[in-house]
Amino acid sequence: MTTSQETQVTNVKAFGTNAAKETLSQMTIARRQPTAHDVEIEILYCGVCHSDLHQARNEWHNTVYPCVPGHEIVGRIVSTGDAVTGHKAGDLAAVGCMVDSCRECDPCKNGLEQYCEKGFTGTYNGRDKYLPQRTYGGYSQRIVVDEHFVLHVPENLDPAGTAPLLCAGITTYSPLRHWKAGPGKKVGVIGIGGLGHMGVKLSHAMGAHTIVFTTSESKKEDALRLGADEVVLSNNEAEMQARTGSLDLILDTVSAQHDLNAYLQLLKLDGALVLVGLPEHPLPVEPFNMVHNRRSFAGSSIGGIPETQEMLDFCGEHNIVSDIELINIQQINEAYERLLKGDVRYRFVIDMNSLKS
Amino acid sequence: MTTSQETQVTNVKAFGTNAAKETLSQMTIARRQPTAHDVEIEILYCGVCHSDLHQARNEWHNTVYPCVPGHEIVGRIVSTGDAVTGHKAGDLAAVGCMVDSCRECDPCKNGLEQYCEKGFTGTYNGRDKYLPQRTYGGYSQRIVVDEHFVLHVPENLDPAGTAPLLCAGITTYSPLRHWKAGPGKKVGVIGIGGLGHMGVKLSHAMGAHTIVFTTSESKKEDALRLGADEVVLSNNEAEMQARTGSLDLILDTVSAQHDLNAYLQLLKLDGALVLVGLPEHPLPVEPFNMVHNRRSFAGSSIGGIPETQEMLDFCGEHNIVSDIELINIQQINEAYERLLKGDVRYRFVIDMNSLKS
Repeated sequence: MTTSQETQVTNVKAFGTNAAKETLSQMTIARRQPTAHDVEIEILYCGVCHSDLHQARNEWHNTVYPCVPGHEIVGRIVSTGDAVTGHKAGDLAAVGCMVDSCRECDPCKNGLEQYCEKGFTGTYNGRDKYLPQRTYGGYSQRIVVDEHFVLHVPENLDPAGTAPLLCAGITTYSPLRHWKAGPGKKVGVIGIGGLGHMGVKLSHAMGAHTIVFTTSESKKEDALRLGADEVVLSNNEAEMQARTGSLDLILDTVSAQHDLNAYLQLLKLDGALVLVGLPEHPLPVEPFNMVHNRRSFAGSSIGGIPETQEMLDFCGEHNIVSDIELINIQQINEAYERLLKGDVRYRFVIDMNSLKS
Repeated sequence: MTTSQETQVTNVKAFGTNAAKETLSQMTIARRQPTAHDVEIEILYCGVCHSDLHQARNEWHNTVYPCVPGHEIVGRIVSTGDAVTGHKAGDLAAVGCMVDSCRECDPCKNGLEQYCEKGFTGTYNGRDKYLPQRTYGGYSQRIVVDEHFVLHVPENLDPAGTAPLLCAGITTYSPLRHWKAGPGKKVGVIGIGGLGHMGVKLSHAMGAHTIVFTTSESKKEDALRLGADEVVLSNNEAEMQARTGSLDLILDTVSAQHDLNAYLQLLKLDGALVLVGLPEHPLPVEPFNMVHNRRSFAGSSIGGIPETQEMLDFCGEHNIVSDIELINIQQINEAYERLLKGDVRYRFVIDMNSLKS
């Protein structure tokens, strides 16, 4: 698994950028030839996550160029290494935010690779363990990934709508499970975007009474369609106060700065507000809000590989996919601009067939 | 239990204040004569909590005068009402922060009266259910309390050192239990004061590896004596960083403004930082610190009646009491000034015998 100068590579077409201020354009990248434990996947669809944009534009100040984003990958397996037992050519497969981890620490051994003590290998901008380059993501023809990090996709699901499950889906599924959303529980979801709309669908499917918090009157109807039992306009003080001390769990999907305290007050005894978005600046938390009702403010990051498979199977059973707008790869720069305006319901997915043309 | 004009009262000596800017002085207050479910206690010792000072000086802007503080009460039972079954005259008994609650909501039914949905009745400045006045606390000769809120005191414990267990003890015991401190766990305690020194003793007695965080080099030796396995100077960056991602639980007993983020980073996967102090202003929390390692920032308020009894029994078994400085009631105003300077190791306790003179 160590980097070797002799690793054989294949060149494939990709879409990426060479600098923070440049738009994305077509480029050629190297993929390793599959080793014994690898799975080679022809990418059919790749979701467009807000992280892609952050990384491409170096907004996290750690991007190494060239940068090829994309970590919501669905494709068809082309070939598998000799030692691969869980996957076979022809299968529909998926890859999410991780393509490797140390596999040795306690979190890794417990299927919580997202909390790997040495840090997992991101699907893009990660330290490639095989080639002297950064990892390149799903805005590309093909990807080669260790079988441990390759997921099975239920055949009944629309593969394009499945792609965003690999990040937006698991990021909301994992905390809903960890904090035990289900029948008899009241679950709030703050924000209806890529993450939020999946949170609503999944919470509803788990049987929880689901309350959407939004500032947009215009999203009210959509929230109900997605499975919300109630929609609360978060800037309406009376609507908020009427729910004081009544929620078990609040999933906070908002990445912009916002006032947590208005939501913390809505939690009942032992309730938790779980952040899955990543606001840039610290969020002020009122101590009394935490001490009262023994409340928690927590965070959660994507999900481990076993739980990601569990989530895909759950979505297969409940016939859940993302609401998407399919685009060609040539529209990616325009899609990023629309993403910044929140102008998408609720996830762009790239039809990778367009990269062939 | 409803307020009645006809409730018979007895006058007793107390120490309290009639205004925020006045010092505490001797006064006479009315105590109801015990009803069928009441226990009448002659107060022997009363701990001095920082809350007493906040309340006396109206720093929470809700004090109704006259105000008689004190909610760390140990005394001898003088008489009991006809229906009382769990207590008898002559027993050593204790009363903490609560003297009543609704008894009907889910938290009350589950022995979590501190989270009563209607709000518990505080031992002082609470709405008295029997008399047209506020409740008066333990800086007094006698108190009459419903038997449900009266605790048994293990006879082997020093009764003066036991008094602070009723607030400082239970406030740290409850979160240590709730977040499962014990063998194999690493528990941090921030701050060595009234709460912190009890947190260290209790965490140690529960078998957890206990790490004290302090800014005072001078408290290092004391922390080790109290049961700490390690002492970290929190303003020493290297000492802090060496513990990144290693703690299961951090008990934060600091009421002053402080930077939570330096401590949140020390939590391992699923670790929690639990606030038991009440800083006045919101505390900024860095989102990345929460999402990484699925950390929680939580709060905890005293403890329920069954758990308070459990704590007293645990302290009896492990021979744990507070480190105290015994004072006469006439020294209370001076003690408040010293409290403000942190000049007490680690709790003032009033010898109520001094009120007789």
